[in-house]
Amino acid sequence: MTDLTSILATADTNLPASLERLFDLVRIRSISTDPAYKADCRKAAVWLAESLTAIGFEASVRDTPGHPMVVAHHAGATPGAPHVLFYGHYDVQPVDPLDLWETDPFQPSIKDFGNGRKVITGRGTADDKGQLMTFVEACRAFKEVHGALPCKVTILFEGEEESGSPSLKPFLDANAAELKADYALVCDTSMWDAETPAIAAGLRGLVGEEITITAADRDLHSGMFGGAAANPIHILSSILAGLHGSDGSVTLPGFYGGVEETPEAIKATWETLGTSADKFLGEIGLSIPSGEQGRSVLELVWARPTAEVNGIWGGYTGEGFKTVIAAKASAKVSFRLVGQQDPIAVRDSFRAYVQSKLPADCTVEFHPHGGSPAIQLSYDSPLLNTAKDALSAEWPKPAVVIGMGGSIPIVGDFQKLLGMESLLVGFGLSDDRIHSPNEKYDLTSYHKGIRSWIRILDALAG
Amino acid sequence: MTDLTSILATADTNLPASLERLFDLVRIRSISTDPAYKADCRKAAVWLAESLTAIGFEASVRDTPGHPMVVAHHAGATPGAPHVLFYGHYDVQPVDPLDLWETDPFQPSIKDFGNGRKVITGRGTADDKGQLMTFVEACRAFKEVHGALPCKVTILFEGEEESGSPSLKPFLDANAAELKADYALVCDTSMWDAETPAIAAGLRGLVGEEITITAADRDLHSGMFGGAAANPIHILSSILAGLHGSDGSVTLPGFYGGVEETPEAIKATWETLGTSADKFLGEIGLSIPSGEQGRSVLELVWARPTAEVNGIWGGYTGEGFKTVIAAKASAKVSFRLVGQQDPIAVRDSFRAYVQSKLPADCTVEFHPHGGSPAIQLSYDSPLLNTAKDALSAEWPKPAVVIGMGGSIPIVGDFQKLLGMESLLVGFGLSDDRIHSPNEKYDLTSYHKGIRSWIRILDALAG
Repeated sequence: MTDLTSILATADTNLPASLERLFDLVRIRSISTDPAYKADCRKAAVWLAESLTAIGFEASVRDTPGHPMVVAHHAGATPGAPHVLFYGHYDVQPVDPLDLWETDPFQPSIKDFGNGRKVITGRGTADDKGQLMTFVEACRAFKEVHGALPCKVTILFEGEEESGSPSLKPFLDANAAELKADYALVCDTSMWDAETPAIAAGLRGLVGEEITITAADRDLHSGMFGGAAANPIHILSSILAGLHGSDGSVTLPGFYGGVEETPEAIKATWETLGTSADKFLGEIGLSIPSGEQGRSVLELVWARPTAEVNGIWGGYTGEGFKTVIAAKASAKVSFRLVGQQDPIAVRDSFRAYVQSKLPADCTVEFHPHGGSPAIQLSYDSPLLNTAKDALSAEWPKPAVVIGMGGSIPIVGDFQKLLGMESLLVGFGLSDDRIHSPNEKYDLTSYHKGIRSWIRILDALAG
Repeated sequence: MTDLTSILATADTNLPASLERLFDLVRIRSISTDPAYKADCRKAAVWLAESLTAIGFEASVRDTPGHPMVVAHHAGATPGAPHVLFYGHYDVQPVDPLDLWETDPFQPSIKDFGNGRKVITGRGTADDKGQLMTFVEACRAFKEVHGALPCKVTILFEGEEESGSPSLKPFLDANAAELKADYALVCDTSMWDAETPAIAAGLRGLVGEEITITAADRDLHSGMFGGAAANPIHILSSILAGLHGSDGSVTLPGFYGGVEETPEAIKATWETLGTSADKFLGEIGLSIPSGEQGRSVLELVWARPTAEVNGIWGGYTGEGFKTVIAAKASAKVSFRLVGQQDPIAVRDSFRAYVQSKLPADCTVEFHPHGGSPAIQLSYDSPLLNTAKDALSAEWPKPAVVIGMGGSIPIVGDFQKLLGMESLLVGFGLSDDRIHSPNEKYDLTSYHKGIRSWIRILDALAG
């Protein structure tokens, strides 16, 4: 058993110096999308590898066809404790438009944000340099007090997260044996609010599909052919309208296979978050939940699958009017998946449904746009509950287990390629302005983030 | 009783000279949409007024805010004979792309078209200079033989038909007393085929409406909001899909009010035209009639009302994929009307239907694009049957009474503003390439067109 109080106290004492280290990292202009910053990306990787080496990790910069990875290993002191892989990314978004920044994006500073909040300014402070440094500094505090880490830790820092992670899958594939741990810790998400830490236990999967329906072999004049010739916009509208039943559910055969109900206990914690349909939808000018009836908005976006049309086009769309019957009509359709829904089965079911609604003299072309299953950490997983207790001990309010409506590809890759579940814990806030001018990270996020990881590592070691 | 044989023989004798006159008119570059040809338009009007004056009409060029009208009057020799208003237009379409023309569009010539057909080449030969000249030359033949016309004739030539006829309605309004006749003869349509003349007795009306549905006040990320926020493309698809029942009929309440069944005798003549769904739709790469079931394709396009979506757009329509939930989605919808359907009632019914399908937190904007009722000449009208017999006497095959799927605004204006029915007879063919390079008019269309008007005028005088 480690002396948690001493380690937390050490982190407190270290805060000024740990901030200086974060500032050093933020000063490196590691913009991954812009080839002009290729050397800066490598510089950030080298800086991280050296920092980790300095606290006893066996760390190396590993080349890829793109920006390098940083991989580091450290043994654990507790027999039987799990082996964890920590993931973060050192690359950042571009800073344009530069003139909207109130401070230099690469000259970090501490700034008063009002309401007693102090924030660290600069590109990457929240996404993701500040977040990954919370873990590094947690490790440092352990080492300073005990000369050891409580469990075996592997660290993977990526430099291409903001540019589509082209090297990540091949790297995981090629280094699976080295990177495989009992589970991954990912620090690239947000808190529920400034007082309430959150663990993202569910990430919806995604299937994207573009369809183009062709009727006649040319555009037709509706006076000449209207009423006799098939109109592909009608066919498409009918197909899309048929995707949802009157109760808001998705009608595709087999669609809900693999979808489990969210436990009542989890739904009960969501109720305590104080979000209502009015509040959630009011921010975007709406008030009535769409989708499946009888479910809260949080359940709808965190734990239920969807079918959405993301784009539609066909016929004459310019000024004025043209009485044309188009030859073709197209739509981009996506499905958000949860639980064990199979992206391939969903795509197949959608395609079969479209074919079944197609007149025999019309044709359809399908064009797939990606597919990934949902990620769902079991709600009674010890990993999740251990982390939840540890976070609850640190923050003013108990940690909440949330879903995330979107997809985070790395989590799917860890599951698929390395057979690992991921624990998503992050300390960002909704006003961090990631990807925008004036990005910031709350000083409390950084300080308590470090303390949170100390508590989590300690608790995971048992 | 006129000596029909002599008059027809005179038209035959006159043919070379009448062709020269048509050539003179075709040489005038009366492109109404292009301000550079404003003087040419006036030149064509003056040329026509002088030609009509030369054969005894009281003709004048009448200024409008756009291009001038030509109005001409001639008394009739037969007591009790009807007064007819003949309509045509002297303006023509632009000629771009010029390099696709095999001959100069404004240097008409006689050309061998294959299969023994001779054609008159040049812009406007079929649309509408050649057609209007068939009537002028018919009048000339009457005058040469008898020194008189068999019935009172007023002629109205317009110079803005190809540019939306902005001056027509005000002109009809301002000159109603002068222009009002017993009925109008309009020569701006086609034959059924090269051997079969056609009278268009039905013209479908048209109501155009653009709708834009707004849900959220901004575009949304489908990961964040998908499943809870209304998607306007879904709402729009559902609205459009609901416009048609499973039997292909239009579902709007009251839509079929004023629609009458086509007489069996008329449908029987349509059957004899040898058009099948396979043949009609096969030309455009289709085979299965859309729209109302159990009706022939000709009935569907000539005599039944429709609802068509002419354009649709919303969300992301570029390359790749964006998981966006759009704030807005739009469609252009049109209705073809028949019989006594009321354009205002149809628009109102559509708007009420859209409103009824709209979630309470979404909004819709309507933007009207024109509305005109259908024109239907009674199938047992003496006018129609007299013209039918006259045409049948001239051509190898009997004349057929057809519908026209599209709208010809002038016919509606004559009915509404002057209380006149129109007889639509024209001698164009489907391969005339009107509005395209290499427009032509068959020499037979011109020659037998002149002879047809002689027979019709003679028959109408009784």
